[in-house]
Amino acid sequence: MKFIDKGVCAPKGFMANGVHCGIRKNKSKKDLALIVSKKVCSAASVYTTNLVKGAPLIVTKENLTDGKAQAIICNSGNANTCNANGIDVAKEMCGLVEQQTGIAAENVIVASTGVIGEPLDISPITNNMEALVKGLGDKSEDASFAIMTTDTVNKEAAVSFEIDGVECVIGGIAKGSGMIHPNMATMLVFLTTDCAIDSNMLQQAISEDVLDSFNMVSVDGDTSTNDMLSILANGMAENTPITEVNAAYYTFKKALAEVTRALCKMIAKDGEGATKLIECKVIGAVDTVNARKVAKSVVTSSLLKSAMFGADANWGRVLCAIGYSEANVDVTKIDLDFVSKGGSVAVCRKGAGIPFDETIAKNVLLENEVEIHINLNSGGAKSTAWGCDLTYDYVKINGDYRT
Amino acid sequence: MKFIDKGVCAPKGFMANGVHCGIRKNKSKKDLALIVSKKVCSAASVYTTNLVKGAPLIVTKENLTDGKAQAIICNSGNANTCNANGIDVAKEMCGLVEQQTGIAAENVIVASTGVIGEPLDISPITNNMEALVKGLGDKSEDASFAIMTTDTVNKEAAVSFEIDGVECVIGGIAKGSGMIHPNMATMLVFLTTDCAIDSNMLQQAISEDVLDSFNMVSVDGDTSTNDMLSILANGMAENTPITEVNAAYYTFKKALAEVTRALCKMIAKDGEGATKLIECKVIGAVDTVNARKVAKSVVTSSLLKSAMFGADANWGRVLCAIGYSEANVDVTKIDLDFVSKGGSVAVCRKGAGIPFDETIAKNVLLENEVEIHINLNSGGAKSTAWGCDLTYDYVKINGDYRT
Repeated sequence: MKFIDKGVCAPKGFMANGVHCGIRKNKSKKDLALIVSKKVCSAASVYTTNLVKGAPLIVTKENLTDGKAQAIICNSGNANTCNANGIDVAKEMCGLVEQQTGIAAENVIVASTGVIGEPLDISPITNNMEALVKGLGDKSEDASFAIMTTDTVNKEAAVSFEIDGVECVIGGIAKGSGMIHPNMATMLVFLTTDCAIDSNMLQQAISEDVLDSFNMVSVDGDTSTNDMLSILANGMAENTPITEVNAAYYTFKKALAEVTRALCKMIAKDGEGATKLIECKVIGAVDTVNARKVAKSVVTSSLLKSAMFGADANWGRVLCAIGYSEANVDVTKIDLDFVSKGGSVAVCRKGAGIPFDETIAKNVLLENEVEIHINLNSGGAKSTAWGCDLTYDYVKINGDYRT
Repeated sequence: MKFIDKGVCAPKGFMANGVHCGIRKNKSKKDLALIVSKKVCSAASVYTTNLVKGAPLIVTKENLTDGKAQAIICNSGNANTCNANGIDVAKEMCGLVEQQTGIAAENVIVASTGVIGEPLDISPITNNMEALVKGLGDKSEDASFAIMTTDTVNKEAAVSFEIDGVECVIGGIAKGSGMIHPNMATMLVFLTTDCAIDSNMLQQAISEDVLDSFNMVSVDGDTSTNDMLSILANGMAENTPITEVNAAYYTFKKALAEVTRALCKMIAKDGEGATKLIECKVIGAVDTVNARKVAKSVVTSSLLKSAMFGADANWGRVLCAIGYSEANVDVTKIDLDFVSKGGSVAVCRKGAGIPFDETIAKNVLLENEVEIHINLNSGGAKSTAWGCDLTYDYVKINGDYRT
């Protein structure tokens, strides 16, 4: 299993493109992406649990009832959510793909990201659909740029792996920088694979995976209305199709986890205004559910996030966040360390503070990737969550997002 | 029922004081408070639900098992939490009160607020206890200053009311600016009353009250380890004692609510770094529990709080926060308005955006007290929550709190 380039175009049979169509005023910012497979794919998605659901999610869910899809279209600059005609516009977007590619509208996954509550004018998409399709090629990077909102870097990952001696590839692109606190689903993540796997197993694989990947990322505690992860599997690797839980399925899931964890870290590190990635590793929990609660609670704490920005080893805030996490923990058993390339420092043993060198702690926390190691000393379960620091720039970005 | 001055000293028979004892280095900052009643009081408390509980809360809970107390001692500058000898130190603080006042240590409520995880050196308290007691008088204000941490203003309130023609008074002081997201209990709030009411009814009154007062305040989503609200009732108003749910109990609760709401607004408005108070008023909910969920979720959203700082009418974030609140709502029925002294603006009807004048919206949101009116149009229940905007200064304050 190894990381390779080319994102969603890394697996056989996938093309992508991203263009500026004009939903955004800034002409240098791409705002329309398309991913297309040469063959019809097994497909699966997970969606936000927010009761306010973007219109594109509703249309996508309908289109995926048969577990088949062949293309993904996504615009940025407008979320097509909480407006009067969102469903119609989302369906029109699928129709435009059909017109230009011949792929049935019902086989299109549609997504939108940006401001909530404003009507999405379809004309910029209509006017640029031909160019978008004509330009399809080995352009995962263009697509990854086109789905960005306040992201500062594009996010791509791919791994190659073998199933019964046959080389398969999973690739992906993602966006997400604010309103990031996924629950059951995630920000926008589009995955492609040439592995042969049926849509039920595909659905099971991503549903299991998000519990420990995107659902463990938090930038600001806000669960978006438009979170979605979709995966297309076109089978062109020609492995024996995966139709049940077997060794090949576990291999697939392991490769999937490599791609999704890589994208998780990219999303957390690029959190709005963030200067550093925070990785909270919990071990010794009574079970996985409780391990996840602790890890997620810590990376979500505004106070801890602010302390990380200031490189302040204010570990009491970590214990506080564990305490209100609603996890089953014995606070008198908690051990806590901060770890980074700058070194490591033990700050708490058995729930109480221990003396530590503030200079060493500062060196640990000044790095741009900091790990918080928590041992609950109560069992064998573990979990990891990813977040970022809370900075002046988060406030700045969100104080005038619409202007 | 009318608001009067003098905070915790407004009811008959209560004295208070606040001094600088030296837990804090800054000599101009008082850090030790004492509130004393002339008579033994009925007493009740509610506490944080955080599993990590400050040592003073554990000692207070023990001291209140008989429903009696006569004094409250509280230091700021150190939370006496997550250290090795916290319980002993908290008990010693009660013992010092007994030495100087003759009030039994078991009748003392003890509280601490400040940094978590460092041992609390009792010697500054020991050395200043005599002066603290000698200075007792009509000094609610000094006590209110002594319990402050990052608060920028002190917080006092009192109302007078009549029960069967007898004048009674409830007074209170509060502190809380960060780590504010109370659950079942609250930041530090000390209430006094001369109303005659037994400790069971007193407990019932505050337990009911906090559901709609302090539990509906959020500054940053972090539920502190040391949240506590305590009330002392010395009976010196000489009304017929309240021992059951009757008309007098409801009058008492109404007066209590006036004091607690006033303190809630002060706490929210003085949230760390805040420039404005946000009051979210939800009506039309199917029941009170769901109304509370919606109101609390909205004032807790980092994205909405940032938008309020920028006076940006980004109402989609309000709908987003309603959507992930886990409340039972029909999103297609939601109406939403922003209201302040600067005017009012309707931004959403039946879950979809409506055209509005951005200039008017800006004028509404530039005020320092902004109301968000949400009509769920699904029933007759309502709730109000209080919060504040998220600003550069919140990050600044919490980036280097310990230094």
